[in-house]
Amino acid sequence: MSEALKRYKEIIAECNNLSHAQNTIYWDMETIMPKEGFKGHSDSLTYLSTEVFKKTTSDEFYELLKTLNTKEEFEKLSDIDKYCVKEDLKDIERDRRVPADFFESFVRAQNEAGVAWQDAKKANDFSIFAPHLKTMIDMTKRMVKYQYPDEDPYDALLDQYEEGMTREAYDKVFNELKEGLVPLIKKITACNKKENSKFNDTFSIPAEKETEKLLLNYIGFSFDKGTTGETEHPFTMEFSSKDVRVSNHFREDDVTDPMFSAIHEGGHAIFEQNVSEELDGTTAGSCKYLGLHESQSRFYENILGRNKNFWVPIYEKIQEIEPKLKAVSLDEFYEKINFVKNSFIRTAADEVTYCLHIIVRYEIEKEIFLNNVDVDSLPKLWNEKMQEYLGITPSCPAEGILQDMHWSDGSFGYFPTYLLGTIYDGMYLEKITEELGDIDVILKEGRILEITKWLNEKIHKYGSSRKPKEVIKAVCGKEVSAQPILKYFTEKYTKLYNL
Amino acid sequence: MSEALKRYKEIIAECNNLSHAQNTIYWDMETIMPKEGFKGHSDSLTYLSTEVFKKTTSDEFYELLKTLNTKEEFEKLSDIDKYCVKEDLKDIERDRRVPADFFESFVRAQNEAGVAWQDAKKANDFSIFAPHLKTMIDMTKRMVKYQYPDEDPYDALLDQYEEGMTREAYDKVFNELKEGLVPLIKKITACNKKENSKFNDTFSIPAEKETEKLLLNYIGFSFDKGTTGETEHPFTMEFSSKDVRVSNHFREDDVTDPMFSAIHEGGHAIFEQNVSEELDGTTAGSCKYLGLHESQSRFYENILGRNKNFWVPIYEKIQEIEPKLKAVSLDEFYEKINFVKNSFIRTAADEVTYCLHIIVRYEIEKEIFLNNVDVDSLPKLWNEKMQEYLGITPSCPAEGILQDMHWSDGSFGYFPTYLLGTIYDGMYLEKITEELGDIDVILKEGRILEITKWLNEKIHKYGSSRKPKEVIKAVCGKEVSAQPILKYFTEKYTKLYNL
Repeated sequence: MSEALKRYKEIIAECNNLSHAQNTIYWDMETIMPKEGFKGHSDSLTYLSTEVFKKTTSDEFYELLKTLNTKEEFEKLSDIDKYCVKEDLKDIERDRRVPADFFESFVRAQNEAGVAWQDAKKANDFSIFAPHLKTMIDMTKRMVKYQYPDEDPYDALLDQYEEGMTREAYDKVFNELKEGLVPLIKKITACNKKENSKFNDTFSIPAEKETEKLLLNYIGFSFDKGTTGETEHPFTMEFSSKDVRVSNHFREDDVTDPMFSAIHEGGHAIFEQNVSEELDGTTAGSCKYLGLHESQSRFYENILGRNKNFWVPIYEKIQEIEPKLKAVSLDEFYEKINFVKNSFIRTAADEVTYCLHIIVRYEIEKEIFLNNVDVDSLPKLWNEKMQEYLGITPSCPAEGILQDMHWSDGSFGYFPTYLLGTIYDGMYLEKITEELGDIDVILKEGRILEITKWLNEKIHKYGSSRKPKEVIKAVCGKEVSAQPILKYFTEKYTKLYNL
Repeated sequence: MSEALKRYKEIIAECNNLSHAQNTIYWDMETIMPKEGFKGHSDSLTYLSTEVFKKTTSDEFYELLKTLNTKEEFEKLSDIDKYCVKEDLKDIERDRRVPADFFESFVRAQNEAGVAWQDAKKANDFSIFAPHLKTMIDMTKRMVKYQYPDEDPYDALLDQYEEGMTREAYDKVFNELKEGLVPLIKKITACNKKENSKFNDTFSIPAEKETEKLLLNYIGFSFDKGTTGETEHPFTMEFSSKDVRVSNHFREDDVTDPMFSAIHEGGHAIFEQNVSEELDGTTAGSCKYLGLHESQSRFYENILGRNKNFWVPIYEKIQEIEPKLKAVSLDEFYEKINFVKNSFIRTAADEVTYCLHIIVRYEIEKEIFLNNVDVDSLPKLWNEKMQEYLGITPSCPAEGILQDMHWSDGSFGYFPTYLLGTIYDGMYLEKITEELGDIDVILKEGRILEITKWLNEKIHKYGSSRKPKEVIKAVCGKEVSAQPILKYFTEKYTKLYNL
């Protein structure tokens, strides 16, 4: 090993040890920490992240990467090291283009906007958030100009969350989807189906926790390499492939929501738990492509979890855990978890209308970045789009533009990855059916782990080392297309709603 | 603030941030971490502790301390800073006297001896542990010679765990206690009282956890400044006065043991939660004197928790939580938690015979350090002492010399602090009775928090800034004496056993 490579790996190991500590503190903060412990945790986190930042943007690290990137050194590297050197060099060059004082003011603005967003949401008053949103839009535009001076700003943002994606590529698949979905949803909602009142009940939180464990085990989450926690908002956290944690929220008034959060986060976690061990501790050791990641969580949550056959082998066990479900037949349960309704809140939407929630946000982001639309006109624009696609108009900003936190920290370009994940899912489904057989049969026979294994081999084990386009090409043999997911939606809901 | 003081505080803050991360990882490791997460946690811990060690033994830090200790600088310091500079200087000078390669081999020997001790205990075979114990004795002697070249080695060790204590001082109080206790225990055990079979039952773990919460709340543990966890061996962990955590073990076959572990660890935690806020983040910010610390945990566990009146205001609530206790009257419960029996295992002993378990260990440590007794003869010596003081002889090493891990990491001089804590407790009890009134009445009326407040004011708030002798002098107005605890034992058990 060359001296440069040795030193590069030393710095990476130091940063991993510091990040590992940050992760632990963050997990503790969200799940366990007593109220007054906040300052100690927060001080320690700030210190550790500053240390990592110093190391990964240092002149020494930059020089090492440039040395390793010279033809002579680069050729001697392993494939993984080649990938990491290229990625790390790209990142450090991007970060070093941002002036330190601008970076600081950006972080400060993010924090302030986060607080303002919470206040505004609570007060249901957009005017509290508006000036901060304006600042975040302006600063994100400046940030991306520093980071990627030669690229179209919104394209650069889209690429940041899902490498290789552009506005043109999104437009193509989202338009395909929109054309098929808008009429389908109109047909579904015209049925005026009633919601099943059996779910308006009080359920047991310990039972919900036990069900979570059952579901995670069932889909292939390893408790030797992961654990669970309780938080307000569910999330997945990866320390390494050997320690991946999911959190969940449990609600007495909703028995199915925690199930689907568990399956969703479980999907993210199964991805991370199955990244090849040799990638541990490298830039490729976890999946940093959000669309690809979301394609796994949503595949488990929707394609598998909202299939009736998923529940056939386990529904009786779940009824034992939560006896109130004994009054609910599997058919009723299946209808409940696929009940389609035009509604205001993205995170509570069914799998079909969810797609349009994302398209609303994507189209508004385009207005912001391409047409410099005025911030004050955004609530109106939001409501118009909701009316256009879902036929409903939010009665207040909390029900509309204030519902999501993403824009408060400048995460423009993030939303589309959610829907892209769903689009990938349609393609995986097509391929799995071709290679493993009818998914209904596999699920009904309790052979879901065969699907998990397929995903492990085709997608998970590569971590970030294969970029999204390569993954889709290698797994599905073709370019991204919305036709498979549209076919899935159409067939499923035509049958379910007798359309 | 002088430049030296400013830089000194910066280094301390950095070390605190790193130690805070270490603590979080350690807590996570013991309570939550999935099995395969061990290596990541362990690597991160090693890295962080090396960083702290580098900083606190650096030339820069040493020079700063020497500067701050000069007459000119020292006089300008606040009282707390004066204390910290003196302590930190003492520590760095002690640590810098130890050759780095010896220190490393010491840590390696500790780890090896720890593994050997576990193996030996499992195999119930002292010969597996003997060579490692010999090494640890030799290395501890060398270590203490480096650290305190001019002091008697065993005195130096005793002082390390409870500053100000010497063999002479321990001999005095332990002999007082021994003289009174041995005949008292003989009288008690001559009663041949039978154990209550109602406790041979299976109890509910969730109920035990709920009872723990009730007890911790009741004695004054703050859940805003602390939390609980589950581990094999109960312990208390302090991040700062704002975040102090206790762990406990829960057993279906023992309903009282988790209660007393909770009260014991709660006592440690209440100490740390009530250290004055201005000491946070300094050397004085937590109590480093083990005797003093143990005096708090044992005061809550024994003096308060094993008093019948402690339970009067809460016993019915506990019976609601664990309905099987409804068949157990408060009198029966009181007898159970004060059942005296000569037994082999220290950690399972009642509060009276416990004292003799410590004296056995203390006398053996003296043989090791003063008379260089041969390691191979230790099991025999142990058994002889057990026979002498408790009238029973262990049938095997696991029941005797192999039961505790302390000697495997060279913690000679640690055991006596457990008993010293109990001796302090007798003195506090005497003083509380004088200042607050009859403890039976206070407890019966549910006014236990008045006692907690008294301890907060008299002891806890000072953290380490008052040394044990100062604390005892200030609180009790006299030198350490075993007479008060002996009086407590004699009166309590004379009544309980109709002696």
